Amino acid sequence: MNGLPEPALHPLLSSRWSPTTFDTEHELSDAQVEVLLEAARWAPSAGNSQPWAFIVGRRGDLVQHRLVRHLARSSSAWAPTASLLVANLAHRYVEGTDWEYSEFSHYDLGQAVAHMTFQAQALGLSVRQFRAFDRSAVAEEFDVPVNWEVTTMAAIGRVPSVRPDSVAEVADPPSRQRRALHELLWATA
Amino acid sequence: MNGLPEPALHPLLSSRWSPTTFDTEHELSDAQVEVLLEAARWAPSAGNSQPWAFIVGRRGDLVQHRLVRHLARSSSAWAPTASLLVANLAHRYVEGTDWEYSEFSHYDLGQAVAHMTFQAQALGLSVRQFRAFDRSAVAEEFDVPVNWEVTTMAAIGRVPSVRPDSVAEVADPPSRQRRALHELLWATA
Repeated sequence: MNGLPEPALHPLLSSRWSPTTFDTEHELSDAQVEVLLEAARWAPSAGNSQPWAFIVGRRGDLVQHRLVRHLARSSSAWAPTASLLVANLAHRYVEGTDWEYSEFSHYDLGQAVAHMTFQAQALGLSVRQFRAFDRSAVAEEFDVPVNWEVTTMAAIGRVPSVRPDSVAEVADPPSRQRRALHELLWATA
Repeated sequence: MNGLPEPALHPLLSSRWSPTTFDTEHELSDAQVEVLLEAARWAPSAGNSQPWAFIVGRRGDLVQHRLVRHLARSSSAWAPTASLLVANLAHRYVEGTDWEYSEFSHYDLGQAVAHMTFQAQALGLSVRQFRAFDRSAVAEEFDVPVNWEVTTMAAIGRVPSVRPDSVAEVADPPSRQRRALHELLWATA
């Protein structure tokens, strides 16, 4: 104990959760969409390889319509209600080869989407990532070349004002459970 | 334009960079180390699979000593000067099988390390991730089972007070360059 205040988990991390209910009236400004992508853009990556790209649709526009078409039944019940639907693409292979573009293409895409999520939280928005969509159909719909992969999607929007105040009240409590800290540590001094 | 202020990139994202020079006098408190791991712990993951674990050494302790032993020549010049050295492990396979534990083990580990990095920034620290170490030697050193992978390391610490004020002055300018936003967009409305 050195008299400093106890460091606390940053509020934008501790308050983060992944809703499946979004405010269907809420819309994002162009500037908000841009700053979300800007957050992803400045993520770190192995050798600055930046192995990411995004397909971005707003509720009601043509891109969102073309994304929604390929959602699985489970995600189609809620993901279209978000203000923004983003398909997150990983640069998997060097064009025309079977050589990995980067060993860290998934890892770095995860970092970029975490940055986007953090920025969304800072704008008062919430994000839910999901995999329940037809990957190859989305790739075909948007002419994504075979050396890129449509890895995940993220639904971004505002949760309705009657959102639970406590994470304990969230409808999906298992998502608010984590292994204990000591279980994450492989070796201690 | 709706009269709202322009949304800005969150300062903890816009100010982030990856130093290779750390303050060799700086030490982290136990509580700071704990909250860094806590940040990683609360990252989202596919089906809440939490495919991550960490080997955490502080400058001068036995774990750090055992990690440093397996750094490549390039990283051994700077990574040991950081206050903390963390090996980031991905849960790749179901134990005793060649079945993927999660299709998103790298992606979600990337998210967890991004969370840790964000928390580090909030504590006034900086992080540099790297791959320049002997992966199998670290696994052997710490008895990491074959279904887990020592994917990356992160050096975390305080940059010396004479740090550049502007990212343009950083010694490694290419790391502060990114593809333009429009190049990240696969399709527009």
